[in-house]
Amino acid sequence: MNVSGIIGYPVTPFSDVNGHVDFENLAQVIDTLFSAEVDAIAALGSAGEAAYLTEIEWQKVAEYTVKYVNSRVPVVIGIAELTTAQAVKRAKYAYEIGADMIMVSPFSYYQLDEDELFRHYESISNATPLPIMIYNNPATCGIDMSPQFMLKMVNNIKNTCMIKESSGDIQRMHKIYNLSNGQIPFFNGCNHMALEALNAGASGWCTAAPCLIGKQPKYLFDAVKQGENEKARELFYQQYEFLEFIVHSGLAAAVKSGFSIQGTPIGGPRKPLLPLTEFSHQQLKTMLLKLNSLT
Amino acid sequence: MNVSGIIGYPVTPFSDVNGHVDFENLAQVIDTLFSAEVDAIAALGSAGEAAYLTEIEWQKVAEYTVKYVNSRVPVVIGIAELTTAQAVKRAKYAYEIGADMIMVSPFSYYQLDEDELFRHYESISNATPLPIMIYNNPATCGIDMSPQFMLKMVNNIKNTCMIKESSGDIQRMHKIYNLSNGQIPFFNGCNHMALEALNAGASGWCTAAPCLIGKQPKYLFDAVKQGENEKARELFYQQYEFLEFIVHSGLAAAVKSGFSIQGTPIGGPRKPLLPLTEFSHQQLKTMLLKLNSLT
Amino acid sequence: MNVSGIIGYPVTPFSDVNGHVDFENLAQVIDTLFSAEVDAIAALGSAGEAAYLTEIEWQKVAEYTVKYVNSRVPVVIGIAELTTAQAVKRAKYAYEIGADMIMVSPFSYYQLDEDELFRHYESISNATPLPIMIYNNPATCGIDMSPQFMLKMVNNIKNTCMIKESSGDIQRMHKIYNLSNGQIPFFNGCNHMALEALNAGASGWCTAAPCLIGKQPKYLFDAVKQGENEKARELFYQQYEFLEFIVHSGLAAAVKSGFSIQGTPIGGPRKPLLPLTEFSHQQLKTMLLKLNSLT
Amino acid sequence: MNVSGIIGYPVTPFSDVNGHVDFENLAQVIDTLFSAEVDAIAALGSAGEAAYLTEIEWQKVAEYTVKYVNSRVPVVIGIAELTTAQAVKRAKYAYEIGADMIMVSPFSYYQLDEDELFRHYESISNATPLPIMIYNNPATCGIDMSPQFMLKMVNNIKNTCMIKESSGDIQRMHKIYNLSNGQIPFFNGCNHMALEALNAGASGWCTAAPCLIGKQPKYLFDAVKQGENEKARELFYQQYEFLEFIVHSGLAAAVKSGFSIQGTPIGGPRKPLLPLTEFSHQQLKTMLLKLNSLT
Repeated sequence: MNVSGIIGYPVTPFSDVNGHVDFENLAQVIDTLFSAEVDAIAALGSAGEAAYLTEIEWQKVAEYTVKYVNSRVPVVIGIAELTTAQAVKRAKYAYEIGADMIMVSPFSYYQLDEDELFRHYESISNATPLPIMIYNNPATCGIDMSPQFMLKMVNNIKNTCMIKESSGDIQRMHKIYNLSNGQIPFFNGCNHMALEALNAGASGWCTAAPCLIGKQPKYLFDAVKQGENEKARELFYQQYEFLEFIVHSGLAAAVKSGFSIQGTPIGGPRKPLLPLTEFSHQQLKTMLLKLNSLT
Repeated sequence: MNVSGIIGYPVTPFSDVNGHVDFENLAQVIDTLFSAEVDAIAALGSAGEAAYLTEIEWQKVAEYTVKYVNSRVPVVIGIAELTTAQAVKRAKYAYEIGADMIMVSPFSYYQLDEDELFRHYESISNATPLPIMIYNNPATCGIDMSPQFMLKMVNNIKNTCMIKESSGDIQRMHKIYNLSNGQIPFFNGCNHMALEALNAGASGWCTAAPCLIGKQPKYLFDAVKQGENEKARELFYQQYEFLEFIVHSGLAAAVKSGFSIQGTPIGGPRKPLLPLTEFSHQQLKTMLLKLNSLT
Repeated sequence: MNVSGIIGYPVTPFSDVNGHVDFENLAQVIDTLFSAEVDAIAALGSAGEAAYLTEIEWQKVAEYTVKYVNSRVPVVIGIAELTTAQAVKRAKYAYEIGADMIMVSPFSYYQLDEDELFRHYESISNATPLPIMIYNNPATCGIDMSPQFMLKMVNNIKNTCMIKESSGDIQRMHKIYNLSNGQIPFFNGCNHMALEALNAGASGWCTAAPCLIGKQPKYLFDAVKQGENEKARELFYQQYEFLEFIVHSGLAAAVKSGFSIQGTPIGGPRKPLLPLTEFSHQQLKTMLLKLNSLT
Repeated sequence: MNVSGIIGYPVTPFSDVNGHVDFENLAQVIDTLFSAEVDAIAALGSAGEAAYLTEIEWQKVAEYTVKYVNSRVPVVIGIAELTTAQAVKRAKYAYEIGADMIMVSPFSYYQLDEDELFRHYESISNATPLPIMIYNNPATCGIDMSPQFMLKMVNNIKNTCMIKESSGDIQRMHKIYNLSNGQIPFFNGCNHMALEALNAGASGWCTAAPCLIGKQPKYLFDAVKQGENEKARELFYQQYEFLEFIVHSGLAAAVKSGFSIQGTPIGGPRKPLLPLTEFSHQQLKTMLLKLNSLT
C-alpha cells in the first residue's frame, strides 16, 4: 500500500427534505474529487461529518464510497470512535467492504494516557490486515499524541505504517522525519500549513480543498516536488486565505457552501452545525471566484 | 425544582464476564450514595462513562436509576451528545421515564460557535419541560462556554435555570455570581476547587467522591454554610489529595478501584480506559484508609 | 518577623513637569495607606513601577519609604532584577537603609531553570540577614515557579520564609498549604482571588487597593478570619469588579487615575505605559463612587 | 538599507577572572562570524546577553562591534529596553556610533497594549534616521505582537521597515507575506523553523548558529533560494537537532560551550544564567563533531 500526493476528502451531503444522507449528491462530490485528479479518497474524515452519522449511515457511506470509487484510486476510511469495541467493529466493516486503508484517530471524552492509546490502536490493528494511518488531530479529537509516541506505535503495532499530522505545529513533522530518518511516511492534515509540510518531507496532503478549487492543491504539490520554489510559494499564497478560511469557518459548512456557490447545491451540515452565515458565504464566494479564474 | 448541597455521581459498573452493565452493582453504588446522604443523584455524567454506553445501555441506566431512587432525592440525567437530534431524543427519554432534571453539555468533534450552541440548547429545551442544568466542562467536552454566554442562555431559553462549572477557574464562578447578582444557582464541578466554589456562593457540589468517602463532602459543605471556616479548611485539606487524585487519574477508573479497595468489587472501566495501575491503586488505598479512619 | 493581614502597595508618583519621582506625592500615597490601616507597606513592587526606575531612583524611593514609615508598620522592599549581581546589590541596599524584609521575584529575559533560580535566591539570601518573601508572578516576571520548588527553597535557603503567589491559580495555594502542612505562610497577590486565597489559608493579601478603597480590603480580611462568610462574600463581590479592573487595566495607571478621581492628582505612569483612556477613567470613577459611598 | 541572507549574532564574552566584557574574545567571535560569511552582524540581541549588561557595557559592546566590523557588512544593534526613554537613548547612541540599523523589541514587566507599543516605536523612530527592524519574540520579551499590528507600524511609522519573527508560529510569516503582498521583508528568528521560514518568503535568517557551524546555515539559505529542495531538506535535517538544542538549552550558554568545545574558550554566561551542565555539554560536543565533519 503506497499512497502519496493529494488525498481528497469528500463531504457527506444530507437531504434538505428529510436530513438523510443523499447518495446522489455524494456521487457528485466524489466525481468532483476525480476531476481534481486526487491520488486517493478518504471517506468519513472530519470533512465528512463522520462523528455526526449514526452507525448505519456510517456503514452506508463507507460502502457506497468504496463501490463508487471502484478501485480507480485507493480508498481510506476514517475511524474515530470513543470506545475500542466500536473502533474495532468499524475497522472490520471497512475491511469487509474492501477499503484499502483505515485512518484511525482516538476520540476522547476522557483523557487517555499512552498506555490506553497504545492498546486501543493495537486492538484495531489486530482486527484486520488493513494498513493504518495514525491520525493526530487534537483540535477535534481532544487528544494530542507526540511524534515520539506515534513512532513507537508504528514500530510496534503491525499495521500502523503512516502518520497524518493535523496539530498545526510544523515541529511535529520535523520530529517525525528526524526521529525516523525520513523513513516513516507522514501526511499534512493542516491545510494552511501545506507549503511547509511538503517542504519538510510530507508524502502528501490530506485535504477537502479539491472539492472547491480542483487541481490547485495538486499543482502546489507538484511545484514543491519539482523544486519550483517561487511557483510553489506563489501557488500557496494564492490559496492561503481560502485554506485558512475553510479550516476556521468549519470544513463541512464551508465546503458545502462552496458547492452551492459553484452551482451544485448539496445541502448544509447537520445540527448543531449551522451553514455559513451570509457574510461568510459571500467571503467564500469572492475567494472562489478569484481562485477559479486563475486557472 | 430546587436542588442544592451534594449532588452524587454514580459510576456505571460493567460485568467482568461479558462487559454488560451490571445493574445489581449499580444498585450498590446508588445505595452507597444514599448512605452518604447526598441531596440529589446525577446519573450518566462523566463519572458514569455515559459517553461509552450504547444508546440502549444509556436508556437502561437512566431508567433503572430513576426507578431505584424512587423519588427519595431528585434524579438528574446527564446528556452530552454530538448531534442536536440525539440530544433531543435523550432529553425526551429522560422526561418519559420521570427524571427530575437534565444536565446538558455540548460535546464536540467540531468547534461550535455561540450561535450553534444556543440553538442546540434551545432545541433541547423545546423538547421537554424538564429544568436544564447547563454544564461547562471544556476538558471532556472540548468546548468552553463563557459565564456571559451561559447567563445569556439562562435568560433567554426557558428551561435553562442553573449552571455547573467544571473549568477549574474560580473566576468563572465570580463572574456568574456577579453578573447575575447572585440570582442564578451554580454548582461546582471541579472536586479540588470545592472549598472556594462554596465560599464563592455555589449552591452545591457535583461529585463522585461520596462513592468512596461517604459524608465527608457533606460535612465540608455544611461547615462552609455555617461559617465554620477553620473546620471547613481542615476538612477540605484532609480531602484535597484524594479529590485531586480522582480527577487526575480518571474519575471512573479511580472510583471503581476505590469500590474494590473498600470491599465491593464492581469491575473496571470500559476500553480504551484501563483500570488504575497497581501503583495508583495502592496510592488510593493509602488515602482511603487514612480518610475513612478519620470519621 | 511576623507579617499578616493587608500589605499595602504604594504607587510611585512622577512629576508631570520633569518626570522625576515626586516625593511629596509619595508621602501622600503612604499616608493614604496608613488611613486604610494596612498591616505592612511593600515599596517597589509591580504597583510601584519599580521596573521602570533607574537604580538611583529605586534607591531613593526605598530609602524615603523606610524613613517616612518610620517603623509604624514593617516595610517590605521589592526586588526583581535581571542579574544576580544587581539583585544582591539591591538586597544589601535594602538592609542598609533599615527595611524589614525583601520580596524577591526572578525577572527573566531568558528562561531560567530551577538550578539557576535556586542559586539566584541563595546568593541574595547570603547577602543580608533580611527575611525573604519569594514572589511568583509569571505574568510580569516571565517565570513560573511551582509550589514544590518554592517550598524546596524555603526549606533549604536560610532567609526564605514566606511566599507570595500571584499566578491566579488557587490550586497553587492548596499545594503550598498541603505540602507544608499549613506551616509556610503564603500571601495572596492576585486581587480578584482574595476571597478564596484567604479561605485557603493565606496569611495576608498584598494589594494596592487600599490606595483607593481604604479599609474595605481589611474588612474582607477580618470577615473571613471571623467566619462571617455571608458578609465576606458580600464584601468581596462589592469589590470584585474594581479589583479585576485595576489588575486588567494596569495597576499603576489605574491607581494613579484613582488618586486623581479622588482629588489627589499624582501624575500618570512612566512611558511606555499610558494613563487610562478616558473611557476607562470614567468606568473607574463610577466604581469608586459606588464603593466609597458604601462605608 | 537592504539586508538579506544570514544575519549572524555574536555572543558577549565575559572574563572568567573579573566578569567584565572581554573584548579580545569578542573580536574572535566576530571573526568567526566573518569566516562563516554572514551577510550582516547583529550585536546585542538575545544571544549577546544584552539584557544582562549595564548601560555602559552595552555602549562599549555596541561601539566596539561597529568599529571592529568596520563596514565590511552592515551592523544591526539590538534594543530591548523597559522604558521608552531608555530605548530612545540607546537608539541615539547606536546612531552616533555609526550602526546601520536597529532591531527593536518591546521588553515588558507590565503588559502593554497596542497603543502603548505604537507610541514606544514611534518615539524611537523619531529619535534617529536609522532603519528599524521590528522584533517579535514573546518568549523573551513577554509581549506578542500580531502580524497585523506590526504591519500597521511598518505602514505608519517612518523608519520601521522590516520584521523579525521569533514566535515559532509559521502562520505569522504567512500573514505578514499575505497581508503585505510579499512587499515587507521579514526575517526568521526561530532557528529550528528556518527551512519553512525561507520557503515562506523570509528575506533572511537571524541566527547565532554560524558561531559554531560556520557556513552551514548559509548553504541552507542558498539551497532554498536555488530551488534545490532535496538538498535544502537534507541540510536542514542535518542541522535540526543542533538548532533545536541551542534554542532549548539557552542560546548564550550553548554557544559559549560550543566555542570552548571548538578550542576557543570564551567564558560562561552571566548569572543567574549557568553554563551548560556536563551532560548537555557532551551532547553538544557530539552534535558539533558530527556536523563539522560533514563539510
